[in-house]
Amino acid sequence: MLRLDLPLSQRTPNLIGSIIDSSIALLARQEHDIVRFAMGAPSDDLIPVSELDQIASRTIPSKYSYGNTEGEPSLVHEILQLPISRAHDPERITVTTGGMQGLDLAFKLFVDPGDLVIVEGPTYTNAYATALSYGADVREVALDAEGLIVEELIKVVAAAGRLPKAIYTVPNFQNPSGVTLTRERRERLLELAEEWDCVIIDDDPYGMLPFTESSVPSFAELSPDNPRVFSVRTFSKIIAPGLRLGWIDAHPSLQPLLISARQAMDTCASVPTQQQVMQFLKEGHLEPHIERVRGLYRERKEAMLGSLERHFGDAIRATNPNGGFFLWVTFEDETVDTDVLFETALMEGVAFIPGRAFSPSGGFGNAMRLCFATSSPERIETGIQRLKAAVTAQLGQVTA
Amino acid sequence: MLRLDLPLSQRTPNLIGSIIDSSIALLARQEHDIVRFAMGAPSDDLIPVSELDQIASRTIPSKYSYGNTEGEPSLVHEILQLPISRAHDPERITVTTGGMQGLDLAFKLFVDPGDLVIVEGPTYTNAYATALSYGADVREVALDAEGLIVEELIKVVAAAGRLPKAIYTVPNFQNPSGVTLTRERRERLLELAEEWDCVIIDDDPYGMLPFTESSVPSFAELSPDNPRVFSVRTFSKIIAPGLRLGWIDAHPSLQPLLISARQAMDTCASVPTQQQVMQFLKEGHLEPHIERVRGLYRERKEAMLGSLERHFGDAIRATNPNGGFFLWVTFEDETVDTDVLFETALMEGVAFIPGRAFSPSGGFGNAMRLCFATSSPERIETGIQRLKAAVTAQLGQVTA
Repeated sequence: MLRLDLPLSQRTPNLIGSIIDSSIALLARQEHDIVRFAMGAPSDDLIPVSELDQIASRTIPSKYSYGNTEGEPSLVHEILQLPISRAHDPERITVTTGGMQGLDLAFKLFVDPGDLVIVEGPTYTNAYATALSYGADVREVALDAEGLIVEELIKVVAAAGRLPKAIYTVPNFQNPSGVTLTRERRERLLELAEEWDCVIIDDDPYGMLPFTESSVPSFAELSPDNPRVFSVRTFSKIIAPGLRLGWIDAHPSLQPLLISARQAMDTCASVPTQQQVMQFLKEGHLEPHIERVRGLYRERKEAMLGSLERHFGDAIRATNPNGGFFLWVTFEDETVDTDVLFETALMEGVAFIPGRAFSPSGGFGNAMRLCFATSSPERIETGIQRLKAAVTAQLGQVTA
Repeated sequence: MLRLDLPLSQRTPNLIGSIIDSSIALLARQEHDIVRFAMGAPSDDLIPVSELDQIASRTIPSKYSYGNTEGEPSLVHEILQLPISRAHDPERITVTTGGMQGLDLAFKLFVDPGDLVIVEGPTYTNAYATALSYGADVREVALDAEGLIVEELIKVVAAAGRLPKAIYTVPNFQNPSGVTLTRERRERLLELAEEWDCVIIDDDPYGMLPFTESSVPSFAELSPDNPRVFSVRTFSKIIAPGLRLGWIDAHPSLQPLLISARQAMDTCASVPTQQQVMQFLKEGHLEPHIERVRGLYRERKEAMLGSLERHFGDAIRATNPNGGFFLWVTFEDETVDTDVLFETALMEGVAFIPGRAFSPSGGFGNAMRLCFATSSPERIETGIQRLKAAVTAQLGQVTA
């Protein structure tokens, strides 16, 4: 290929991209009806389009000049008022172009080529893709219903023979598994980060979408102002992903470094979009919106678990998350290959993300992530029926 | 400082940030009247705010879900119609979060730590900051009224003892000098890029803002579809910088790599902002807007040159650009230190960017960049009077 004739950097082959995003691109090319359990996005009807469009339609007039690299002060002010926000100091907050940029900045600031980075197994695809883009030696640590298993973590670090630079975790309603890290394990991670001189990259896109009153305290509540806790947040799941707005909540001493890094990346996030989200927050739209969607997401999760039980019974194991967007489904039959199943399922009219996408070591070949957030309960039933048809077509009858 | 207790990456001390952006932040804290020659931005009255706000106000409804990483197809379609665009293949175009992200992607794809990167001396601050963030060994090559001096380039490369990975140039109305690279030198650079197996990072924010009919062909016109030409474009200077929208025009074989890199950076640019700019282009607002501002920018440049001549005469040398935003002013008195002058000038009520900001080696201490685009001719006269007062206060009488 022609591109091999160009003097590419050594990191370029490590730019693996996103199996999720390329699955989405593949999906976009399909012309038949497909039930979409693949992408981790709110359904279009659960995005507050009319409120956002109404805000855009008022003559503000909008600001279109360069903004502050760390974010528009009025938006930072609103972020500090959010229930998820424990911060009071605006210097803790740096507005980012989506949560992804928060992860990019985290690995840029802390990871050199060869550095050990711990992720959960399974973990969020684009996060480990970003760690790899900085040359990280990424190692997975298994999780169970209580989140990342700390005893396994200690073993993995001992086997690596050196200490990690960063532990990447999605503590609440994890992507892709849906599990939540317990308080006790959070406390253990904080102790280990201190002992090992490493940072915790605390990626929490779903923390404001619990299905019950959440009782697990955040890292910030357990250890206020701890410089080792680097928190990445986003409006993608609670307002809309196309806005590409998120923020970092980190120790104020890091902000000058974040600003320097950003000025060599994209200068600042879209200023009119920052104004739009600021106004959405200021007018109090977020709380009622979240109240509404939380209830619907819980219904959808219950619907999906019900459909899975009816159609697959004991042939699969599924997690039962207390919030967020995702179920993690593992086939009891270890010979099921969800990469192969994906093709058949797409023909049958249902899409998911195969398990291997969530594992830098290529594990979880008999598992898959299902997003329940995007579809109504009726569509979910249709989708699970199609999934069953795909599995039957592929493997013959499955015990149900 | 506390941050030193964190396990930062080796690249972090190289994240030098932007002297331009930090000057702007300093400016923002001033409460007295200041004539702003510092930032390279259109003045607020030359941003088409009413057209942009009107577009935002129409119920489209907007799209707020994830967009394609390479950009919204409708925006890519409009980009291909631009007069600056020589491309016909949509796979050449990748929409970016501002032109800065185009530079970030260029250096990410091509530059390893220690790699030789050639820049013009003086050059655009944030570009070399980005190259340094990837560990580049950045070397400056002097320019004259015809742009980068190719004989100097050959000497610099010979002295380095190894070939460059990338040559970074702003070919039209260069930032900060305002000079334009001649056709002959462009052709020489294309030959050298082939001979040296390197890429040309062709950063052209100002090419659509000529003051006369431009006769210098672009790299793409001189060498169509050349994979060594990586072109970075932006809407910042022709529409508005706060939109944070630009694009890369590069060989289609690079697009999968750009997409992979982007998915580990920010996924895609703000979707509603992409829609807004698409609509602005589709409705034909760009051409009349550019016609209007080009004339005003030319007037402003003439006004600035006139004021400089009246107040400084032979004490300075100024470039006379045929387009863009900037004049480069050098004091004949080499003991003038524009870093020091900056403080006095700020007190007198005028701001510029000191020359050293544009030089990784810290040269050009007796020069400065003046942006004529932001101020009316009357304000420009006021600003140059204040600049004269600052110089007089600092140095005593200057020969005029």
